[in-house]
Amino acid sequence: MRIDIITCLPEMIEQALSCSIIGRARKNGYLDLHIHQLRDYSTNKWRRIDDYPFGGEPGMVMQIEPIDRCISALKSERDYDEVIYTSPDGEKFDQSHANEMSMLNNIIILCGHYKGIDYRIREHLITREFSIGDYVLTGGELPAAIMTDAITRLIPGVIGDAGSALSDTFQDNLLAPPIYTRPAEYNGWKVPEILLSGHEAKIDQWKLEQAVERTKRLRPDLLK
Amino acid sequence: MRIDIITCLPEMIEQALSCSIIGRARKNGYLDLHIHQLRDYSTNKWRRIDDYPFGGEPGMVMQIEPIDRCISALKSERDYDEVIYTSPDGEKFDQSHANEMSMLNNIIILCGHYKGIDYRIREHLITREFSIGDYVLTGGELPAAIMTDAITRLIPGVIGDAGSALSDTFQDNLLAPPIYTRPAEYNGWKVPEILLSGHEAKIDQWKLEQAVERTKRLRPDLLK
Repeated sequence: MRIDIITCLPEMIEQALSCSIIGRARKNGYLDLHIHQLRDYSTNKWRRIDDYPFGGEPGMVMQIEPIDRCISALKSERDYDEVIYTSPDGEKFDQSHANEMSMLNNIIILCGHYKGIDYRIREHLITREFSIGDYVLTGGELPAAIMTDAITRLIPGVIGDAGSALSDTFQDNLLAPPIYTRPAEYNGWKVPEILLSGHEAKIDQWKLEQAVERTKRLRPDLLK
Repeated sequence: MRIDIITCLPEMIEQALSCSIIGRARKNGYLDLHIHQLRDYSTNKWRRIDDYPFGGEPGMVMQIEPIDRCISALKSERDYDEVIYTSPDGEKFDQSHANEMSMLNNIIILCGHYKGIDYRIREHLITREFSIGDYVLTGGELPAAIMTDAITRLIPGVIGDAGSALSDTFQDNLLAPPIYTRPAEYNGWKVPEILLSGHEAKIDQWKLEQAVERTKRLRPDLLK
């Protein structure tokens, strides 16, 4: 899968997407990631990409032309399934979107910054708008990294133990049950005895009960 | 404000939290950020911090002892308002939480990794659990960076133009109205005429109508 991220702050995400699981996914050819400096597509000698908004809003707005030039350059080389913009008023990004995106071939993610992007970009150049949550950030760089991380770990082969990904929270609309590791007792705090019993069927039953109980209590909306 | 992040992958977020607005907030003393390598608190010579789960789940679990040692070391030096764990089954983090956290003095954010952390940590050492969205990531590092970004930009003085932060989406439970910048026409795509009219009162009225219309259409839940 190929992901192109367009940003005026490549240095904000280059390192985050170069280490650990995502770094290995890139090295092993599962993810072909390209991070583009939007300023390279500016049309002026100061490499500016923003300007004052019409109508006197405070803050600066990202201009349409450099973004159009960058997206056009990418599109002239290959077809893209989606051109995504991350915005707090977009569709709420969730695990089902991560699954859906992980099956695409080529996507572009445009990172907003400053007060936002000229609205004509959203009307004419963007095919999909996602919000990763109801909070405001300094820019779209971390949301692009979050989406890239969530999508990439679902590409078959990226996570060694496929069983581990399948038992994640959300994959079956249940929260994960509590997990424990050694020591069995720490500071007087004990691991539930059932987990030390060796009765595989009873343990599975306990895990399912815990998952259902936690989901009912904490996230009843997931059960619909 | 001081934020301590505990992680086994400091390199995943160090750069993201050193540039742009957050980097300047650190340089100018608004944010005192410390990122701790959890492996430094391991008790074995291999610096291991994870182990197999009880009950035969696939994946590895982060152990209680290194985390307890790190949190205890920090607590012995100052009081913490919250010890936060980021988890997909935590309370949904939103802008009101960002506001609330931005008024605290000292917080710890613990990043989970692998399959998660020993549940006794959540029961005994964590005071608050947040989820940044309904998706699964390779670890808690990017969520910790997201929370740090959302919180820090609300600290007075961090964003130069306070008017800009106040007109953000979510601050008044309305989505932001569309914004535009030069040129007024691009590719035949025009900026709404009202914004070029110079009638300040009419422009403000248009912006409010747009904000309400967009909120009704895209996020009626925000209007309650």
